[in-house]
This record gives sequence, structure tokens and C-alpha cells, in this order.
Amino acid sequence: MAPIHDLDAMLRPQSIAVVGAARDKPGATWVDMFGQIVEFGYQGRLYPINPNADIIRGHKVYPDVTSLPETVDLVIIALAAWTVPAILEECVATGHRNVHVFSAGFGETGEEDGLGLQRKIEQIATKGELRVIGPNSMGIYSPSQRLVTWANAPTQPGEVGILAQSGGFADAIVGYGSQLGLGFSTVVNYGSGLTLDATDFINYLSTDPETSVIGAYLEGVADGRRLLEVVRQANRSKPVLILKPGRTEAATRAAASHTGSLAGDDRIWQAFFAQTGAIRVESVQEMGQTILSLLRLPPPPGRGVAILGTGGGASVAAADAAGRAGLEIPKISDEGLERLRLVIPAAGNIITNPIDAHDVLNDPALMPEVFGTLGVDPDIDMVIVYFHIDWMYDVAPDRVRVLATFLAESARSHLNGKPLVASWRSFRTGDEYRLVVAEMETILLESGVPVYPDIDAAVGVLARLATYHGFIGDVV
Amino acid sequence: MAPIHDLDAMLRPQSIAVVGAARDKPGATWVDMFGQIVEFGYQGRLYPINPNADIIRGHKVYPDVTSLPETVDLVIIALAAWTVPAILEECVATGHRNVHVFSAGFGETGEEDGLGLQRKIEQIATKGELRVIGPNSMGIYSPSQRLVTWANAPTQPGEVGILAQSGGFADAIVGYGSQLGLGFSTVVNYGSGLTLDATDFINYLSTDPETSVIGAYLEGVADGRRLLEVVRQANRSKPVLILKPGRTEAATRAAASHTGSLAGDDRIWQAFFAQTGAIRVESVQEMGQTILSLLRLPPPPGRGVAILGTGGGASVAAADAAGRAGLEIPKISDEGLERLRLVIPAAGNIITNPIDAHDVLNDPALMPEVFGTLGVDPDIDMVIVYFHIDWMYDVAPDRVRVLATFLAESARSHLNGKPLVASWRSFRTGDEYRLVVAEMETILLESGVPVYPDIDAAVGVLARLATYHGFIGDVV
Repeated sequence: MAPIHDLDAMLRPQSIAVVGAARDKPGATWVDMFGQIVEFGYQGRLYPINPNADIIRGHKVYPDVTSLPETVDLVIIALAAWTVPAILEECVATGHRNVHVFSAGFGETGEEDGLGLQRKIEQIATKGELRVIGPNSMGIYSPSQRLVTWANAPTQPGEVGILAQSGGFADAIVGYGSQLGLGFSTVVNYGSGLTLDATDFINYLSTDPETSVIGAYLEGVADGRRLLEVVRQANRSKPVLILKPGRTEAATRAAASHTGSLAGDDRIWQAFFAQTGAIRVESVQEMGQTILSLLRLPPPPGRGVAILGTGGGASVAAADAAGRAGLEIPKISDEGLERLRLVIPAAGNIITNPIDAHDVLNDPALMPEVFGTLGVDPDIDMVIVYFHIDWMYDVAPDRVRVLATFLAESARSHLNGKPLVASWRSFRTGDEYRLVVAEMETILLESGVPVYPDIDAAVGVLARLATYHGFIGDVV
Repeated sequence: MAPIHDLDAMLRPQSIAVVGAARDKPGATWVDMFGQIVEFGYQGRLYPINPNADIIRGHKVYPDVTSLPETVDLVIIALAAWTVPAILEECVATGHRNVHVFSAGFGETGEEDGLGLQRKIEQIATKGELRVIGPNSMGIYSPSQRLVTWANAPTQPGEVGILAQSGGFADAIVGYGSQLGLGFSTVVNYGSGLTLDATDFINYLSTDPETSVIGAYLEGVADGRRLLEVVRQANRSKPVLILKPGRTEAATRAAASHTGSLAGDDRIWQAFFAQTGAIRVESVQEMGQTILSLLRLPPPPGRGVAILGTGGGASVAAADAAGRAGLEIPKISDEGLERLRLVIPAAGNIITNPIDAHDVLNDPALMPEVFGTLGVDPDIDMVIVYFHIDWMYDVAPDRVRVLATFLAESARSHLNGKPLVASWRSFRTGDEYRLVVAEMETILLESGVPVYPDIDAAVGVLARLATYHGFIGDVV
């Protein structure tokens, strides 16, 4: 038998049995795991288990795990908690080693019944050498295998690997990441982590050829020392981003109720991040936004950012945001300022850093010279274009599209390989207006320019990017 | 003559002359101040000044200030900077005391020409005892008078007074505030603040009967001691919110280029906020969001918040956010927990604080008891309902509307007068989806429930609300 940490068969199963497959209904609900798997188009062998049916969605039904015609790669248990111990015993007896327990109602309840059940399944799983995802877990999403056990997941595969204790987080990062044009390799929601923990999944994803960046949502972990070693190793070849909530006492209490985790003193986690170089993020959005830039942008050579914006007040705010995020806003060289003054009209523009360059963003013909100047400035490591959609839109809605197209197609080519992100602000509403914003974002994202709907997000991402590449450069 | 700080005639003018009124064109552009004033429906007497026209938009044109048939309450100068000194001299000579200089190209350019012009107009204005809004300023927006000098302002008046050095900020807070259902009394963009400064406008708004909350965007101020005294006074009767950028060196540099302000050491500003009790905000959004709750909610009796949410991971994140914002997340009393356990199903819900109460938010019939319990809990001072739109929407789109309607109509009535805000998350896109979100927000906002699109915004607002009312309670 393969070692317990060899997860390939489990995460890339050729055959799956679902204990508690729901009988045929039109349209799978989100708790109908068998229906979700069928509807998502899984191509492996599928065995519904249900003592009260013969055929479900065209598949022959079996009454229990023992009757299965083969030893399957993955058994999914989607029945009430009290039935789980007997089913696990059956798995052990029949040589089924890989189990996903969807069911909730164990240790995470904090109630005596649930705690008792948890101790029971832990004994069975440990003694029987089961690999268990869960309990209280949504399981696996792997679009390249057309495998998912939850609703509304996109079919487009990609290179982002995710492990999450929280099912809500897994659902959210997939939904939000898709908006940013990101695709996923393998996403595991492992819930309470009975025998398989964050460390096992990070270890797996670190050598998975489909995965080039790893995102983790951890409320707690059993073996902190092992996690540190695995993350330190993984992070050298693939960026590891971790959302570790529970900085406050109330959040720690909430985490204990959610996945039964002991969140631990946040100072220990701060040391963990300093030693591993893993990237700490604070929300679903931060994780998605940071992954977007890690995948799309070259490493910045340093922390100096040039901000090319519209509006004096916004430029001041942008500089504040960059400073708060720990970026530097270097002065542009005298030679560079001279070149900029030749192309940017003095009236209504402010030529310093941030550059308040209303006319440049409205006139793509000026951009090559401006970007060329920033591209060769030795103190400028990356560039943010920060534009005010309302003003462009008021003059002519098409200006927003023209700017996006130009940034996407040619501005980058003058930047000498330095990272460029776009950020915008807008304080209007209206459907027509939203369509222009959506089109602008699509143009930028599809051409590989990360775009962020507020300047704090943009500077935060660039700061994390610079820190990560700085760390990797130091340790390699 | 009225003292220089008596701004009533200037800000509520019965008559306005516009030097540099543009000749008739279909549709006023944003730099056509006369056209904007006419199109917005101003009811006072209007005098276009332009030596090359006879009639503009049906109004008799005058060649210069000297030829005007009356001494007007406000002269607006919208011509190139070099023409401004002579026009100011003319104003002094003809007894026009109130002037708004739209023109840019003075001290804020940092160039010798502009600095020279600035010194010149300062001498003329000081000697002639002119009250000057500007230069480099968009001027006044006052919807109850149908007065505006810029484009796209909403016609609905309200109780928010704004003074802003940055025109971009003034435009943004009006646009964003309108989205939140806020209306404005008087908004002044005063630019470089030649003879009238933030202090003068705060002083005015503090006694203006139309204004009940004051928002300020300050890059710098001439007389810090006077500002402190005026804000301290004003803040006792009307909350004063200040966005003071320039915490970083680069931002300070940008501010100097923008409005010629010396931003000053941020520690001085920290002391300023501690002494005045004014509310510090960091962005347009924070200002709008905080004003919304200040106007709509009763004062919270303390800093203890109950969070009623959906999703374990989200509850942990919400508790973290509340802790970071400086709120307390008290345990619910044993008696309260007992009452909650009677109505909230144990499976899939977590009954602690945060309450992960998926079933409650999907079943309005459970809410009166839940809110009633929180309403009488002595440690709970306010409540956030934090829901996951995707999950409700997936089950039935109408659930989002039902929840909003119920929160708006009846949940509040069980809370015993404690403040309630709503916050939501969503990681999907799609037009149909956006309409549900927009409708939900409209239902809540129209019934006076502040709603925020992320939990950090919601807890930040409540923390500022608690701090403000705590301060006012201490000093009154």
C-alpha cells in the first residue's frame, strides 16, 4: 500500500462511490454530491450507493460499499454523522483507503455527542490507515478531471491549487478567482482534517505539475513544525499564499466552533511567515488579487513604484496608500522629468511622482514616451496606472475602452519588462456605465494586465509581489 | 460691510456674474461654468460676462465686471490665470467682495510665473478685502439653491455639508454619497484657499441649518490652532469627518504640487484628532459610509458587537475584522444562548458570537426571537447581519429580497433601539445577479439600514460611530 501521504489516487480518482447518492431529481441541489459529479461531466467510473434505488442518473446503484464491483479510488460519504463510523469500518474491511466525509456533526459542534463520534471515527481511520478528507467538508474540485462535489463551479481548468478548511472559502476563492480570469488545478476543502491536514495537501500540490501557485485557508494545524518545513520547501518553487484568520480572541473562539481548530497565538504565525517566506493575505479578495499578479507579472527588481494617475487629490491618496503598503515612491530622475515635460502639457497635469497626467491617459499617442521614460528610470521598479473612469466616461465613454486597449497592447511594450498594473476609481452607478467598466476589465485581464478596483488593493498586491520575489532571491 | 468670514451671501448668492461665460453651444461641457449653472436651474439673477457676445443662453451679456447693473453676490472667474489680477482689481474697484476663481496656474504649479501671479492676487485680495474661493477650484454645489458650477451633480438636496481642497474629492463624495442615498446641503471646493480656508467653511457649515454632518478633505491648512478650535466647537453639535491625506513623504510632495499645501507631520494631526474628537477617515468610501451610519443610526451604548452571519469561515473572518477595527465581540449571555438554541437548529449553525446562522437568514420567522435576544443582552451594543448572497441566490434569488425586506421592516423593531447594519459578500458576476444585489441595497438603504459591501467597511463604520458618540458623551 502507498504511504498515507501519497494522495494521487484520491485527488485524481479513476473511480468514485457516493454513499448516500440522492435518487433522481431534475437538477442537482448543492447537497446532492452524486448529482453534482454527474452534471459536471466526470469521466471515471461512478457508483451510487443507496439501499432504496436501482438506477440513479443512468448508473447502477449498489446497496453498500461491500457490494461494489471494484475497490474504488475514492469513497464519498454524504449521510448523517451517526452512520459514518459503520461505513468507515466497512471501507477498512473492504480495502477502501480513500474517503471523503461530507457529513457534519462531529467535534466541530462542541457537543458531547459530536465529540464522541469524532473520537470514534478517528480511531477507526487511524487503525485502518484511512486517508480522510473531512469530516464537515465539501471535498474536491478539479476541473481538468471534470470532478466537483459542489455547485456552481466553473469548468475552465488552470494553475491555481487551493486547500481550505472552510468550504465557504473554497467556494469564494473559486468564484472570485474566475472573475479575475484565474483557473484552478485542484481545490480541496478538507474541513476538520481528521487524518489528512493542510501539510499533506500543500505537499501534494508542491509537486503537482498542473499547479503553479498554492493558496491555503488555515484555521489551525496539527503539526506546526511539519507545516513550516513543507511550506518553506514548497514556497521556493511555487508561491504559497496563506489566509490565516483568528488574530483576535473572538475569531479564535469562532474558529474553534467552525473546524475545531486551536488557532494559536498570532505571534507564532508571524514568525512562521518570516521564516517560510509564504505570503500572508487577509481576505478572499487579497488572495485572488495577489495570485493574479504573481501569475501574470514579471518579478519587480525592487520596491519603487511610479504612479500615473488622474486628479491631484487622488494622486495624494495613491501615494499615501503606497506608503502604507510599504512601497517606495522614488523621485523621477531629472533626465526623466525633462523628457516628461516635453510630452505632458503643464496645465492641468503635475509632473512628479505620482504623475497627475490627465492628458496622457486621454491621449494614447503620448504614452510610449511616458512609459519609455519610466522604463529606463533606474529607481522605478514597477508602474501603476490609476485612472478615474467617471471623468473619461463623461468626456466620451469610448475613452475608457481606448485606454484599456492601449495599456493592454502597447504601453507594456515600452516599460522595459517592469510590472504594470491598472487601478481605477469610479463613484457612479447605472447599467450602461457598468458595462463600460466590465468591458475595460475584460480587455485588461485577457491581455494579462492585472486590474484592481481600488488603489489599496493595487499597492498591496505589488508590495506582496516585491516581498515574495525579494525573499526568494535571498534564499535561492 | 460684513466681516470677511460671513459667507452667507457668497454661498447662498441671489446674483452671480460669470467672467468668461462660454458662448452658446448645445450642452454645457464641464469647463463651461455659466452653462452648468443655467442647466442646473439656478433661480437667482445671472450675468454672463464676455466681450464677444450679446446674448448667452437667453441672458444679456456684459463686457466686464464694471458694466454690471448691480453689485452681485458672487463673481466667478473662469479665464486664464494671467487675466485674473486685473479682474480682481476691477472687483475691488466696483465693490464686488465675493469671488470664486476657477482658473488654475498659480502657486500650485511650483513654477516662478505661477508663484508670482499667486503673490499678486493675494496682495490684491488682502488689500481689497475680497473673499476668494480658489484659485484652482471648482466652487460651489448647493442643490437646494439649484446652484452648481460642475457637471453631473444630482439635484436632490440633503443634510451633508462638504468642504474640499480637491475638486476630484468633491465630485467623488457627491457621486458616491448619492449612491448611498445621501443628499448634500453645501459643497465647496476651495482649491488653494487664497483668503478663505477650511476653517472658514467649517465655521459656516457648523451653524448652517441645512447641514447636520460636515465632511472635509484637507491637504493642509494655514492656521492649525484656529482650525482646532473651530473643529472642536463644530464637532460637539455636528459630527466633523476629516480625510487628511499626506501621511507619507511622497504624498506630502504630491499635496504640495496639488494645492500648494504643506501637509505637516502626521503626529500633529493625530493629536488634532484626539483633541477635537473629529472622525478621521482614509478614503472617499470611508467618509460616505461613515456619514451614512451617523445619519441613520442611534448612538450605540458601547463597543460590543454581535455578528449574525452565514458560513463558519466568514464568521471567523468577521470576528477578526471587528477586532482589528477595535470593536469588542462579547460572549452572548447564558440566558441568551439558551433562547437562541431553542430557535436556531443546531446542525449547520454555530451558536456563539459570531453567530453562524444560515437558517435564520433564510427564515424570517426565526428572526424576531433572535433579534429580541440580542436586543436585551446587556453586553451587545450593536448588530451586524453579514450574509452570503451567492448561497441565498443559488437556493432562490428571491431569498435575498426577502431578507432585505425583513431586516428593513421588522428585525430592527426587535433590537431595542440598538444600531443594526447589514453587510454582504458575493463572489459571482452576471447581470441578473447584479440586479438582485442592487435591489437588496435599495430596499435596505431606503428604509434606513446602512448596508456595506464588505465586512471591513461595516466594522470600521461601527467603530467610528462608537468612538464618536463616546467622545461626545465625555465632553458634553
